[in-house]
Amino acid sequence: MSSSTIYQATASAPVNIAVIKYWGKRDTKLILPTNSSLSVTLDQDHLRSTTTSRADPSFERDQLWLNGKEDEIKPGSRLATCISEMKRLRKETVEEKDANAPKISGYNVHIASYNNFPTAAGLASSASGFAALVASLAQLYELTVSPSELSIIARQGSGSACRSLFGGFVAWQMGSSPAGTDSLAVEVAPQSHWPQMHALICVASDDKKGTSSTSGMQRTVETSPLLQHRIAHIVPERMQAISEAILKRDFDTFAQITMADSNQFHAVCLDTTPPIFYMNDVSRTIIALIVELNRVSVAKGEGYKAAYTYDAGPNAVIYALDKDIKEIVQLIVSYFPQHAREFKDRFQLFAEGADINAQTKIPEGFNEAVAKRFEVGAVKTLIHTRVGDGPRRLGDEESLLAANGIPKTLA
Amino acid sequence: MSSSTIYQATASAPVNIAVIKYWGKRDTKLILPTNSSLSVTLDQDHLRSTTTSRADPSFERDQLWLNGKEDEIKPGSRLATCISEMKRLRKETVEEKDANAPKISGYNVHIASYNNFPTAAGLASSASGFAALVASLAQLYELTVSPSELSIIARQGSGSACRSLFGGFVAWQMGSSPAGTDSLAVEVAPQSHWPQMHALICVASDDKKGTSSTSGMQRTVETSPLLQHRIAHIVPERMQAISEAILKRDFDTFAQITMADSNQFHAVCLDTTPPIFYMNDVSRTIIALIVELNRVSVAKGEGYKAAYTYDAGPNAVIYALDKDIKEIVQLIVSYFPQHAREFKDRFQLFAEGADINAQTKIPEGFNEAVAKRFEVGAVKTLIHTRVGDGPRRLGDEESLLAANGIPKTLA
Repeated sequence: MSSSTIYQATASAPVNIAVIKYWGKRDTKLILPTNSSLSVTLDQDHLRSTTTSRADPSFERDQLWLNGKEDEIKPGSRLATCISEMKRLRKETVEEKDANAPKISGYNVHIASYNNFPTAAGLASSASGFAALVASLAQLYELTVSPSELSIIARQGSGSACRSLFGGFVAWQMGSSPAGTDSLAVEVAPQSHWPQMHALICVASDDKKGTSSTSGMQRTVETSPLLQHRIAHIVPERMQAISEAILKRDFDTFAQITMADSNQFHAVCLDTTPPIFYMNDVSRTIIALIVELNRVSVAKGEGYKAAYTYDAGPNAVIYALDKDIKEIVQLIVSYFPQHAREFKDRFQLFAEGADINAQTKIPEGFNEAVAKRFEVGAVKTLIHTRVGDGPRRLGDEESLLAANGIPKTLA
Repeated sequence: MSSSTIYQATASAPVNIAVIKYWGKRDTKLILPTNSSLSVTLDQDHLRSTTTSRADPSFERDQLWLNGKEDEIKPGSRLATCISEMKRLRKETVEEKDANAPKISGYNVHIASYNNFPTAAGLASSASGFAALVASLAQLYELTVSPSELSIIARQGSGSACRSLFGGFVAWQMGSSPAGTDSLAVEVAPQSHWPQMHALICVASDDKKGTSSTSGMQRTVETSPLLQHRIAHIVPERMQAISEAILKRDFDTFAQITMADSNQFHAVCLDTTPPIFYMNDVSRTIIALIVELNRVSVAKGEGYKAAYTYDAGPNAVIYALDKDIKEIVQLIVSYFPQHAREFKDRFQLFAEGADINAQTKIPEGFNEAVAKRFEVGAVKTLIHTRVGDGPRRLGDEESLLAANGIPKTLA
């Protein structure tokens, strides 16, 4: 290769939303969890992080820009760890084995990353962000290691990022090694196994700044007497049972475990001193609606229709089969009217240009008194998406870096 | 005695608010709990149930009026059980031992009961109500049994009623007998031991009808995987530790355990399927204020100032020492302005006729951003009271029954 070769790669990676929750680290530096967790990867067509990485001998230092703004790479930080671990893999698995391989592990890198969803959406961007970082560096370095091996590195950036290295249904096995070599993500089932699995994200407006998950989970580890019981006796069984439910495409069991585990995660938050609350009155109302929807549906012999789950914030993610999403949107909008033209109808649930607030519908037999109606804006937006694939390799035309190695938005 | 003797007694009984929560029955008929609990009895000068019982050979059946409205005594009901148990005690411990004792256990009774606090205050009236019922019948029947023995009967009316048979600080020992003979209340310390213990009840407005505690606690027993751990491993230690704290008048420990146990009670509610929520955004805001108040105070080396606790509803009960109540009222009112003349200043915290909304004050160093300010009415009222005594014997001039044996309000 000539000296003008540009070593660059661009990748995108998905968001994932856990159904068995990760909450608690047994090693905060290596990010080793106190329990295994399991998530559904969401479709990158809708929500994604995109990252371009370039290695060049002219770069004076490693630099990273997130959404066009430089993010300092502090020595010893999680970001620095991920980058140096990827360089090490390049060196050990490529350069030391193939004398012809260019020695680019010694070059500094420029990295530009972009999330296509606003921070205001309240979705954790660190999972997709670190997964895209690791995926783009793996391409840049032409690594042949497995996604599970890459997940070990992504995990050290942000725990749940390891699960975004796969599409479909993904388990993060907690492992037992003190070095963390067996704390990694594995695929439970690919996207294609159960493509009918859709998700509706209800973005709740929130006045207050919540406790960060990083500090919150350690406070729970230190103070919640119930957490240890959850870790030792409850999560292992649930991991097994929900994996089987996914393999059997058993939505009823999937839904029951998903909701029970969301509840229990928030229960141990409440059992923390001082207590941590992530759900608010809007969150609780959506739970009441889903509980009543399922009650009516189960009573009719039609089984569960939806499963709510909440992360470290008030937003609901509702998992449901594609056939039931329209009914769920109509129900949610009945209680949470939307701003005009806010809803992006990606799956053509409604006629083109329809006013979603005119499409409300309460299922037959549904007890409307389970919740009160809110004002427009209490749920700011609804995002309809579905199970998706793992990190994607993108063409150079999607590069976020300009020829001079600076983000295009700044160049 | 002449045939015109009126067999009648009037008693009042206090409300109690638990600091170690009762949640779950191992026997729903006898009301035997899955764990011991502990409460503070509140002052009857402020909140009480008053009950008059009369036995008369002319009465055609047992009858009871609650707040002037007849409440049917269904066969086999908790009410029927309490009345028949009290008649049995009269028969076995008095009439069968003293041939001269009038055989009034065979007479029907008329009972009138009245709560001096509105149902809308959201305070459980069943505890004080059943305690007053049992206390008045015990007087009527001239029983010499101990309050603990009476508590066994009150317990069968409403579990927490057993704790209202004592003043001060009261433990309900869960016992182990299947017949419930050792599931009873005992005094941990009398009112006089720690009269500085005050309470501020913050009555939160609530749109929704919550899950009743009777059905809620059994759903938790049936579905919460965390409850069993709480019962077996956490409550026994906490009972011991908070009893010692009370005996040592150690407010810091008392406060920490009280708040942790309130949190954990609500955590197991959340861990229930479907989840049970009793606290709302107002409740959560009051928690945030108390946590911040204590943080500032502990940082100044002054220890804890307040302990919140929540029962099966959104109302906060804040325990604090008398010296700190004024500051707490000023803080709460800063975030929850009151309707004019709503606050009853029983302890002369403020100048006579002062507008409480003009008395707000934020402690030095307090981070005001921990919560947003609410509109007038979000906290409907504040009730300032303190630790109080057990059931009282009242004079005939306080009888609720008219000469004809019908409530005075109806006669």
